[in-house]
Amino acid sequence: MKPEWDLLHTPGPTPIPPSVERAMNQPMIGHRGQKCKDLIQSVTPRLKPVFKTEGDVLILTGSGTSALESAVVNTTNPGDDVIVVVAGSFGDRFAKICETYELNVHRIDIEWGKAVAVDQVEQVLREQPQTKAVFLTHSETSTGVMHPIEKIAERVNQVSDALVLVDGVSSVGGAVLDMDRFGIDLLVTGSQKAMMLPPGLAFVAMSERAWERIQETSRPRFYLDLRAYQKRVGDGQTPFTPALSLLFGLDEVLNLIEEEGGIDRVAERHQLMQQMTRKACRALQLPLLVSDEDASTTVTSIRPETFEAEQLRKLAREEFGLVLAGGQNHMKGEIFRIGHMGYSRPANVLQYISILEILLKRLGHDFEPGAGSAAAQEAYLEGTREDQA
Amino acid sequence: MKPEWDLLHTPGPTPIPPSVERAMNQPMIGHRGQKCKDLIQSVTPRLKPVFKTEGDVLILTGSGTSALESAVVNTTNPGDDVIVVVAGSFGDRFAKICETYELNVHRIDIEWGKAVAVDQVEQVLREQPQTKAVFLTHSETSTGVMHPIEKIAERVNQVSDALVLVDGVSSVGGAVLDMDRFGIDLLVTGSQKAMMLPPGLAFVAMSERAWERIQETSRPRFYLDLRAYQKRVGDGQTPFTPALSLLFGLDEVLNLIEEEGGIDRVAERHQLMQQMTRKACRALQLPLLVSDEDASTTVTSIRPETFEAEQLRKLAREEFGLVLAGGQNHMKGEIFRIGHMGYSRPANVLQYISILEILLKRLGHDFEPGAGSAAAQEAYLEGTREDQA
Repeated sequence: MKPEWDLLHTPGPTPIPPSVERAMNQPMIGHRGQKCKDLIQSVTPRLKPVFKTEGDVLILTGSGTSALESAVVNTTNPGDDVIVVVAGSFGDRFAKICETYELNVHRIDIEWGKAVAVDQVEQVLREQPQTKAVFLTHSETSTGVMHPIEKIAERVNQVSDALVLVDGVSSVGGAVLDMDRFGIDLLVTGSQKAMMLPPGLAFVAMSERAWERIQETSRPRFYLDLRAYQKRVGDGQTPFTPALSLLFGLDEVLNLIEEEGGIDRVAERHQLMQQMTRKACRALQLPLLVSDEDASTTVTSIRPETFEAEQLRKLAREEFGLVLAGGQNHMKGEIFRIGHMGYSRPANVLQYISILEILLKRLGHDFEPGAGSAAAQEAYLEGTREDQA
Repeated sequence: MKPEWDLLHTPGPTPIPPSVERAMNQPMIGHRGQKCKDLIQSVTPRLKPVFKTEGDVLILTGSGTSALESAVVNTTNPGDDVIVVVAGSFGDRFAKICETYELNVHRIDIEWGKAVAVDQVEQVLREQPQTKAVFLTHSETSTGVMHPIEKIAERVNQVSDALVLVDGVSSVGGAVLDMDRFGIDLLVTGSQKAMMLPPGLAFVAMSERAWERIQETSRPRFYLDLRAYQKRVGDGQTPFTPALSLLFGLDEVLNLIEEEGGIDRVAERHQLMQQMTRKACRALQLPLLVSDEDASTTVTSIRPETFEAEQLRKLAREEFGLVLAGGQNHMKGEIFRIGHMGYSRPANVLQYISILEILLKRLGHDFEPGAGSAAAQEAYLEGTREDQA
């Protein structure tokens, strides 16, 4: 297995920065010793600005799904009414977890590729005033939609007492979500997307209100019991042995975010990459699945009409080692997805757009040669004009 | 944080072999691509001889405790009667998980430092014939006791239909446990002990009988639902994004085990390290917590009488970077524990014994200088005599 030459542009796992690779490559340490405490006490407060919260950010060892499940099992009891917005695979996963844990799930099913409207959420909430929690996906990785979470959170808080619980797996670190300001109660993510780490860590940020609910929740849970994590976070400990090599890496990831100027600057870079990608696709006559308004800053889906999505992915992989993602579920073969998040810069976008042009040529797609690259360049120049002023 | 000079001899996390560090340090790959499939299909069958089973070994992303919880939630329904042997912190953790998940727990509490007798288990089983499962710890990391799991499993199977579920966290990879032959139904471990990896992966091996029970179990579970892992293992997939860098390392760990001659040879090395350590302690007048018969092959506990255990640990850490573990719960300050597992060889034992002699001298402990080293050397020569014949 020699993936050294791969250009990994799936929406997670994402490439690891060299300095993070080096940081992870440290000799093992005891997880109850001073070095581990120092490490956890170094990273914990520095995660807060990434989540835009004053509250604690807890570190779990697990896939992103473990964090989604922690959101469900810590805040709900069997039979509770909950609303879940489902506009793709990951909304569906949240709903499945809720169903597994015997909740009375009110699904808001949205066509894949579209975002939910704030009014739709309000309407269901008014129909179901007993709702205890609203489960939302910020960036729906399977389609590249970014739901207007802040507006939804604001509205939910205006019209109900339901908790607002958000899957931020492909958004935290690649978009700004003003958790505290807009009253998001629980925001979770994994390590392998915009957080620039290999998979294996998950993060849970919570509000005071979520914490109260968590303490009242009687449902059995052990490994994912957030009370156990909360209890030890102040001492720089985790209840169970953490994935230490990823924690070594996390420390350096936070350095990189800070060196770039903080999460707002990082989010701007993601927005710039999104603009470059979308404008290039338009110039190349590649139909975008998602509207400008609903588009994610970290992943862009294209629904080709003149060639097979899977054929393009195969060519990209074989000829350039460019790894793109396909569609999921009923979108399999219908779309391909480009991840532009984490350790990814405008220069990477210029590269994959130029590669795409060659491949489109091979596939007989009709477009003006160089138009995609030119559009990406223009978007770059436009997007960075203010910086230079 | 510069732990480069540390000599890590806690019973987990344990040092990582350099070739495993190099293997982990690979560029990220997509978890749904061919490379990941090839990797999982390479490691999965090679885990079977390590667990001594013909059955599937499932790979979870989580701490060892996630695997303990998976054993509980997949095989039991609320209200089931179960027996848990508790002879230290980790037996107690198994019992706590069972209690959390509303089982009717029959604890067999054993004095810390002693192993359970087969007859005790049989007696409780006869008193509680409705018992659905017996939860056991192979190597009790908190004390250095190794329970006679094979004999217990054999007896449980003779007198009941209860499943035999075993925590092998500090034993798998450092001891032989003939899972299939003795009718162990579920055997779990973590990556950070004898498996020579950083923490973050957990492994679950299961019998056909366990698999039947798992399919019948109605209890809600999602992230730790072994059915989801089983369903995809044949395709070289995991249901959720796995800790890929640890999977890269696992491939090399299996190479190392195979190069050494397989798990039986690896277990012999652990037994040799145990013998060297114990004989040296005896020669140094250091009281061993555990009898020869009950001693673990991977961790040795010492209960000093002439000095403070914590004082020795402090000196060891400060002067030599030798990291030893202390006691847990009521044994805090009473004992210190030496881990000799995973990436650890007889040469490491010779080193820590010689260091211990210097420290004992400083602490005013009465012993014949060099006696520990001589005993360890003799144990080594004795233990390797057959190899040379």
